[in-house]
Amino acid sequence: MSDGDGSARSEVQRLLRADLRGRTAYGAPQLDVAVRLNTNENSYPVPQVVVDAILAALADEMAGLNRYPDREFTDLRKALTTYLEKQSGVSLTPEQVWAGNGSNEVLSHIVQAFGGHGRVALGFTPSYSMHPIISETLGTTWVDGMRGSETFDLTAESAAAQARAHEPSIVFLCSPNNPTGTALPFEVIGAVLEAAPDAIVVVDEAYAEFARPGTRSALTLLGDHPRLVVTRTMSKAFAFAGGRLGYLVASAELVDALRLVRLPYHLSIPTQIIARVALEHADVMLATVEVIKQQRDRIVAELARLGATPVASDSNFVLFGGLADEKATWQALLDAGVLVRDVGIPHHLRVTAGDPGETTAFLEAMARLAPTHVVPTPVADPAPEGPAEQESAS
Amino acid sequence: MSDGDGSARSEVQRLLRADLRGRTAYGAPQLDVAVRLNTNENSYPVPQVVVDAILAALADEMAGLNRYPDREFTDLRKALTTYLEKQSGVSLTPEQVWAGNGSNEVLSHIVQAFGGHGRVALGFTPSYSMHPIISETLGTTWVDGMRGSETFDLTAESAAAQARAHEPSIVFLCSPNNPTGTALPFEVIGAVLEAAPDAIVVVDEAYAEFARPGTRSALTLLGDHPRLVVTRTMSKAFAFAGGRLGYLVASAELVDALRLVRLPYHLSIPTQIIARVALEHADVMLATVEVIKQQRDRIVAELARLGATPVASDSNFVLFGGLADEKATWQALLDAGVLVRDVGIPHHLRVTAGDPGETTAFLEAMARLAPTHVVPTPVADPAPEGPAEQESAS
Repeated sequence: MSDGDGSARSEVQRLLRADLRGRTAYGAPQLDVAVRLNTNENSYPVPQVVVDAILAALADEMAGLNRYPDREFTDLRKALTTYLEKQSGVSLTPEQVWAGNGSNEVLSHIVQAFGGHGRVALGFTPSYSMHPIISETLGTTWVDGMRGSETFDLTAESAAAQARAHEPSIVFLCSPNNPTGTALPFEVIGAVLEAAPDAIVVVDEAYAEFARPGTRSALTLLGDHPRLVVTRTMSKAFAFAGGRLGYLVASAELVDALRLVRLPYHLSIPTQIIARVALEHADVMLATVEVIKQQRDRIVAELARLGATPVASDSNFVLFGGLADEKATWQALLDAGVLVRDVGIPHHLRVTAGDPGETTAFLEAMARLAPTHVVPTPVADPAPEGPAEQESAS
Repeated sequence: MSDGDGSARSEVQRLLRADLRGRTAYGAPQLDVAVRLNTNENSYPVPQVVVDAILAALADEMAGLNRYPDREFTDLRKALTTYLEKQSGVSLTPEQVWAGNGSNEVLSHIVQAFGGHGRVALGFTPSYSMHPIISETLGTTWVDGMRGSETFDLTAESAAAQARAHEPSIVFLCSPNNPTGTALPFEVIGAVLEAAPDAIVVVDEAYAEFARPGTRSALTLLGDHPRLVVTRTMSKAFAFAGGRLGYLVASAELVDALRLVRLPYHLSIPTQIIARVALEHADVMLATVEVIKQQRDRIVAELARLGATPVASDSNFVLFGGLADEKATWQALLDAGVLVRDVGIPHHLRVTAGDPGETTAFLEAMARLAPTHVVPTPVADPAPEGPAEQESAS
């Protein structure tokens, strides 16, 4: 059975699950570029006051790493509950809150508990590309629902009709949507809950803190809907992508069911402490949100002035069309020291709103490229085509 | 759709995957007891020199938590490789090493990549109870193989015959075995690899550092077997259960395939740093292993003297039989301030070897209980019966 690399590779491919053969792993390129605007991170570092508080809290607890963590992460759940109640005005209990190592993990808990072989998960493309990857990796049949073709909008009528047609066990909504940036019309959520009576309806609100004034959170619907799940993350507005803490809110009964599929002790002692302390400094951690929203609005205005077609954004990123060849523009921007995201939509790219300097670097590069890269009228057929790299994890 | 708790619960149960309905979540009781010998932790805290090194390393990196971690955890893989080469004498490359938030997560990656609907995972009961839970939660059919009925031994002939009969896609071996404690006869591994030509063969070596002299690791077989996986953890000998870092070693080709099913950025920046620094202090972290082995041998000798029937142990725990009623003894020990584990094997309990004081507390309590709780001759039929609590996570 001894063999070289080639036969080891073919041996592994032979034994791999059939539907995984030939796939490539998810992930944006990890490139060492001066201006990184490709994964929708918050460009501002964690403030020193929070770093100091984290280190002080860890100093008291690191000797105890020989013991398993609190499996129910009680203190962290309380901190998340306090934060969410303050941020949303919705009254919640810690039993309604669940967390994982990134929101991908809490999404995977939903799919494991309520999806599986013979069940369907429905999403509306283009949207967060980990929704289909998580569903399919966990053996759930994925159905690519559709959005409007020009501005990627999703109406209540269209969403409900698609939900009725596919009889899903899970429906993924995303508001604000990634990679397009716009918040969902609020009535879509209720329409989908009604049209898919056997489905868990997930509203992925990874970017909720960046939404424009008046945008209503699905958290306000939780009291009436035990099948509704709202997912959030500390990776975006909270400037905490490296801490890996995603969470969801739902009925206490739904959250309790997730304990059947989670790996025990999935959140380490440091993860629980670090996230809790960061949440206790929420005001400081979120202090950069307003300046980032200003940069986002600046990107939308400036790209329109250059003849491109930016999509309205409630997020910390902007999807823009009107490019003759998005792959050529992506490379030209990289050559100028600016890394953005090719999300697989022809003639479009996605850029994160960075700090003012990063935003200026991107806009100046785009101004130089516009005469040859931007075609003045919107191109037809912006429907997604694979393969391309996927959007950033949350 | 508004409803109280009862209808929310029935709504969630209705939508739950059918095979999960009525299950209870994995987990040992989290009780506040003076002497906790139930989850096979290392009783010794992390030494201050390591705590200080961890805090110093974190101080430099916490401000950067706004950015995503290195998705390939390059530095941590190098540290794990260095540690394993030194500990085992086997030559390895970082491309052969993979890690997760506890070894449960790397086990789940194996099951996701090579198991799934219509495929069979085989283990030999009693063994680590997360093997069936992870397999079934991920839609893989679990087959409970058998061990010898008296000392829970597994011979090469028996393992091979069972592997041939069930045509598994994954076989779980466990050496030293949990909850029985004894290392596997080394020839079982080769026999199973031969008898199950379409299987990934996983040797779970969570407790390898505690093995008696002369116990050979499956790491020594890796060069010849691209289908062989060895899993390890920092939760046991390494005194790092709260840090949640489990890992596996296999062919580089097999490890590469796990990137198809892992959630991107699954290891946080703090997790990568803290585990790396702990590994750089491996000698200090493992300094307590010898005294723990002495306590284990003391437990085996003393329990035999009391008329119980301890199983030979290569781990930091001892399974012992000869109890008239294991649930009554479990409760009597708890009443005496000592928490041990009921692993669901009639007339048996499992106890972790703690520090000398904890071990003395357990043995003194057992000495008081022995006259009424221990039956002098081994009882028949030690085959497992459910339901009972499961063994500790690794």
